[in-house]
Amino acid sequence: MYDPMLPPLAASMGEPAGVGPDLLLRAFVDRASNGVSPFLVYGQANFLRSRAQRLGLAVEIRPATPATAAAVFADALPVFEVGGLVPDKPGEATPVSSQFVIGAIAEAAKATLGGACRGLVTAPIHKGVLYTAGFKYPGHTEYLAALCANGGEPKHPVMMLLHGDLRAVPLTVHVPLAEVPGLVTKELIVSTGRTVAHDLKTRFGIARPKLGIAGLNPHAGENGGIGREELDIIAPAVAELVFEGFDAEGPFPADTLFYPPHWRRYHAVIAMYHDQALIPIKTVAFDKAVNLTMGLPIVRTSPDHGTAFDLAGTGKASAASLTAALRLADRLTAQTVSA
Amino acid sequence: MYDPMLPPLAASMGEPAGVGPDLLLRAFVDRASNGVSPFLVYGQANFLRSRAQRLGLAVEIRPATPATAAAVFADALPVFEVGGLVPDKPGEATPVSSQFVIGAIAEAAKATLGGACRGLVTAPIHKGVLYTAGFKYPGHTEYLAALCANGGEPKHPVMMLLHGDLRAVPLTVHVPLAEVPGLVTKELIVSTGRTVAHDLKTRFGIARPKLGIAGLNPHAGENGGIGREELDIIAPAVAELVFEGFDAEGPFPADTLFYPPHWRRYHAVIAMYHDQALIPIKTVAFDKAVNLTMGLPIVRTSPDHGTAFDLAGTGKASAASLTAALRLADRLTAQTVSA
Repeated sequence: MYDPMLPPLAASMGEPAGVGPDLLLRAFVDRASNGVSPFLVYGQANFLRSRAQRLGLAVEIRPATPATAAAVFADALPVFEVGGLVPDKPGEATPVSSQFVIGAIAEAAKATLGGACRGLVTAPIHKGVLYTAGFKYPGHTEYLAALCANGGEPKHPVMMLLHGDLRAVPLTVHVPLAEVPGLVTKELIVSTGRTVAHDLKTRFGIARPKLGIAGLNPHAGENGGIGREELDIIAPAVAELVFEGFDAEGPFPADTLFYPPHWRRYHAVIAMYHDQALIPIKTVAFDKAVNLTMGLPIVRTSPDHGTAFDLAGTGKASAASLTAALRLADRLTAQTVSA
Repeated sequence: MYDPMLPPLAASMGEPAGVGPDLLLRAFVDRASNGVSPFLVYGQANFLRSRAQRLGLAVEIRPATPATAAAVFADALPVFEVGGLVPDKPGEATPVSSQFVIGAIAEAAKATLGGACRGLVTAPIHKGVLYTAGFKYPGHTEYLAALCANGGEPKHPVMMLLHGDLRAVPLTVHVPLAEVPGLVTKELIVSTGRTVAHDLKTRFGIARPKLGIAGLNPHAGENGGIGREELDIIAPAVAELVFEGFDAEGPFPADTLFYPPHWRRYHAVIAMYHDQALIPIKTVAFDKAVNLTMGLPIVRTSPDHGTAFDLAGTGKASAASLTAALRLADRLTAQTVSA
């Protein structure tokens, strides 16, 4: 059971037309059997009541604050009211709700940064809709990095996908494949390695994190025969990390690095690009993996799927990944003393 | 049990310093329990005797031809003698044996092309060693394509990795990642799709093969937001295949395409590059997958691993992939009437 003295987790409701609200309701209903600690939804109570009715879920929704959420959570879903228009039309995304979507993230992040909430779990948003409304960040994560910087220079956030003990970090994320080779630099690998090792130590309590680093090319370049990035960039970056005292090995051929007996030698694997990290995770854990943002002053997790518009309002979307995200955020902040 | 009227499979011994000879011996020893049909090793009897002794395997080795191999196979490993020097030094590759390695492939391919053997299984070779000796092909497969062309223009061979019902085809193979986007053309996707559909129909007996085609970029380019290859090249290629009467769908985001409920909708998945196809296969079946070459006039399979010099002569290498390669070649040629 959870410690009633701990602040709640903050959960931003995400895109109203997507499955985020559905999954938060489902995760609340199943909170006891899944061991989910109190979370406070940054959303709108009336919208959630309407969505619960649509899903046939008997859920009491009650307005709350970070201070009251844990007590409310025993018999009602605590909701912190965020302003803006939120039409209840599953699957029909509209820029009309963008102010609300962005506001929910901002309020939830603010509460977490200030310590009123102890970790942030974000339900999926749809960037395309937000861009129409003038959202100027490449994604959720970059927006959070900016919020955490509070007007200063944002830190470089690092994305990690987790399933069980498999922790995979894509060095580059949402960029065209053709741009990847140009973005794989020694500096980026070293700074990413430092961030991952730091957060594994401070948040996961791993005294000496061991990092396995993938190559970029097939067979990790076969000693220069199939590309030189391993020799010219990645191996020197691994050497630099080792020189700085980190436990890092590689570059390894990516196709065999994700075979369990190999990746289990490492606390985290750093892949060079999006699909190199996400294919192995989603192949074995499509709807169960969790996205964790490293390098921020707060713990932030999210499910590893999108808005799934076609499933919104149907009750057919699996809450496994969101539940795993709530549980991971809980675990990573359970030892944190309230500010 | 096997049909004694069928010609044997041909198995080229591969790099003598690697695990190929070890695995062929092991596959022979376990032939009954694994249901392995007669195969004729294109190798050297004395070398194999010495390797068997080193491994502590009581295997009788007997000289044979395609005509006698099936009868010999009941109590001895049939070997077709190939000329050249073959030092028995596990782990110590030397160009001295290159003539033998290349000759074994050529002899085994010739026997298969002529119908004396019904399918070809190749044990791993080490290209680096062969290059030193003047081997001028990018790899095993291209050499076989040239042998099959018999002096004419070689057909474009297509590589397929198989594990159970998962069949993954990398559109591009052993090229640096930076060159991949330039090599992904509509023509290559269409010709690869045609070859895969043709061989699934003729060799696997699948009346109407269904092909799933991956995107190149993260999230399959998110409608142009993360790269345009899906819109400009891959989607038009899929449309062309459909126009030609093939059952093809895509492009799909590669990270979710290999989740079993998704790939199971297709008889084969075409990935855009090496790791996109091999990561999911090796993640779930590191030492069990099989490599099949499509687009050749003969059936050719091989294990999906390399020479593993560190395991040669130790008896520690798993014969699972080679055994699967032998079984697949058997299955794909069992209906073939002897020429």
